[in-house]
Amino acid sequence: MTMPLLLTPKVGILGGGQLGRMLALAGYPLGITCQCLEPAKESAAAQVSERISGEFEDLQKLYELAKSSDVITLEFENVPVESTQWLSERVPVYPPPNALAIAQDRIQEKTFFRDLGIPVPAFRSVESRGDLDAAISELGLPAVLKTCRFGYDGKGQAMLTDPTSVDAAWERLGGRPLIYEAKIDFDREVSLIAVRSALGETAFYPLVENHHREGMLRRTLAPAPNLSPELQRLAESYAETAMRAMDYVGVLAIEFFQQNDRLMVNEMAPRVHNSGHWTIEGAETSQFENHLRAILGWPLGSTRLRGLSAMVNLIGFFPNPEVIHTIPGGHWHHYGKTERAGRKIGHVTFCAQTESERTWQLAHFPDHGK
Amino acid sequence: MTMPLLLTPKVGILGGGQLGRMLALAGYPLGITCQCLEPAKESAAAQVSERISGEFEDLQKLYELAKSSDVITLEFENVPVESTQWLSERVPVYPPPNALAIAQDRIQEKTFFRDLGIPVPAFRSVESRGDLDAAISELGLPAVLKTCRFGYDGKGQAMLTDPTSVDAAWERLGGRPLIYEAKIDFDREVSLIAVRSALGETAFYPLVENHHREGMLRRTLAPAPNLSPELQRLAESYAETAMRAMDYVGVLAIEFFQQNDRLMVNEMAPRVHNSGHWTIEGAETSQFENHLRAILGWPLGSTRLRGLSAMVNLIGFFPNPEVIHTIPGGHWHHYGKTERAGRKIGHVTFCAQTESERTWQLAHFPDHGK
Repeated sequence: MTMPLLLTPKVGILGGGQLGRMLALAGYPLGITCQCLEPAKESAAAQVSERISGEFEDLQKLYELAKSSDVITLEFENVPVESTQWLSERVPVYPPPNALAIAQDRIQEKTFFRDLGIPVPAFRSVESRGDLDAAISELGLPAVLKTCRFGYDGKGQAMLTDPTSVDAAWERLGGRPLIYEAKIDFDREVSLIAVRSALGETAFYPLVENHHREGMLRRTLAPAPNLSPELQRLAESYAETAMRAMDYVGVLAIEFFQQNDRLMVNEMAPRVHNSGHWTIEGAETSQFENHLRAILGWPLGSTRLRGLSAMVNLIGFFPNPEVIHTIPGGHWHHYGKTERAGRKIGHVTFCAQTESERTWQLAHFPDHGK
Repeated sequence: MTMPLLLTPKVGILGGGQLGRMLALAGYPLGITCQCLEPAKESAAAQVSERISGEFEDLQKLYELAKSSDVITLEFENVPVESTQWLSERVPVYPPPNALAIAQDRIQEKTFFRDLGIPVPAFRSVESRGDLDAAISELGLPAVLKTCRFGYDGKGQAMLTDPTSVDAAWERLGGRPLIYEAKIDFDREVSLIAVRSALGETAFYPLVENHHREGMLRRTLAPAPNLSPELQRLAESYAETAMRAMDYVGVLAIEFFQQNDRLMVNEMAPRVHNSGHWTIEGAETSQFENHLRAILGWPLGSTRLRGLSAMVNLIGFFPNPEVIHTIPGGHWHHYGKTERAGRKIGHVTFCAQTESERTWQLAHFPDHGK
């Protein structure tokens, strides 16, 4: 679908968290105004953009959003697919609802990649205790049992290490559609931020290395250390294939397990992604700007790097800001949220010219991200 | 004066134009919220920040601003000095009112620099036709006759080329305090963006080369081509001296005429400056972020360059945005204003790694800035 190049477009966003906030801030210099639809009282995006207050299922609110937006996108993948379908009959919605449907269900997601010939860990659908026992005997242990839907930041998961851990996991998670995934012995987790525009143009950032703890992303190194051109090409070819198959528009993040020169898809996120926040300072064009350009049918911006970057999430509490401000190349991002245990309330990006400079920066910011 | 390091400070800004808009946008990621006091109905800043609508002389509005701001600054130098003095008895005001007073009067400004041993063009105060004739015979022609106050973008100026042009200039400008300045045969115009924090820390960006037409800045090249370290040191020493003398806090822009290895001050602007807009993409920390850090007493950010930059003002009309978006390294800045002849409505920054890349970018953006 092509659209006229609007000079001052209005973008509607489903969700009003920090991703919406950073989309809105990226939009202003481009003449783009964002408005978010968000049910929660506190909203990081609404502090810097217009806001429609309401539930994602409220047709009156959805109508209001559709009526006043040139294009609609999302910053939160657990919005009802039906709502995006309803909206897409009235105004372009990117990414398309079918991509959202795939991303919301781990079985559909893994099947989608597998059917395209893109490696994924061995998995089984689990709807009963009998399914679980069968999966264990077929794929073995250790493995991960996950809810198929609405898991995020490590929630809705259980690690099955040996037969004694199975009962407790079933007790906690059983009764909902589950997925049983063989545990992968990977070298590291990497992710790709890919973007495809409404005109079919694609662009990719370099693979980054991600460090999680307690199911939450803590640190991202960009580009991933010792990244080979071959691995980058492999990741891009997987993303290109997947985006074309979904007729995808916008930023798509794909998380991979890396084993030597192989990549297996762990999951995808049909939106701007935490592991791409470093692009605000670390790349010529940020993932937020490129997402907006993509959904508006504008030419994509250069993804050229400005050097090395490291992104550290601020989770639960703010460090002394003076610590960040005295580290050269440190960039503070405050989401306008209050402190709460386990909550992502900001991030810091460190920009460096050399590996040793980046190591020095991270060593001087010890409170977070380990 | 030292202040506690506030986590989410509120900054009051006198003026609500594009400089205020870019200050507000720089503030959000830092947890800083800006509010502007602006009399005009249309305001580029008010689209992205809170706003108090009112005149700069309205004590009730000034009180409202002081009461709800942790620190106050300005983005427009023609606000009444008395208003900033009144505010400064209630809340810190940076830059200090005395710096504003100097910048508002060309005679005071030139005298200030001259008394510090910093070169300025020869000048005379002109209050009568007799003063003008005396100045002509003492300093000769050609020369420039300017109003002492409230001139900007080339307004309130007349070029005196020969004796026949004197009567018309006097007719147009006479009756107000004027300054007669010897016309300088300079190689080029360069400017320095300097910043001094409330704790006395200073930082400088490299000198940039500016191209004006019809009294308005059209293009800035950063850094200035063929910039020698000696010239940079000279400019920094002048700025350091001037800032210390005024106990200055915030960004200070100084425009110079360059003659070989000499610099003469043309004028200063006690605020973030059009010739520093390239720093948003072209430097590690933008002039807007560093101004906020300076007035809040935070450590200043690195002024390291990310490569070469060129800034082109969009004056009067918008180009086809597609032209900008298809030039790699092009960054569009829309001020949320409508088109009007002679109005600054946006700018574009081109980021390049080499001189030939920058030349290529500018050649592909021919509509503006020549």
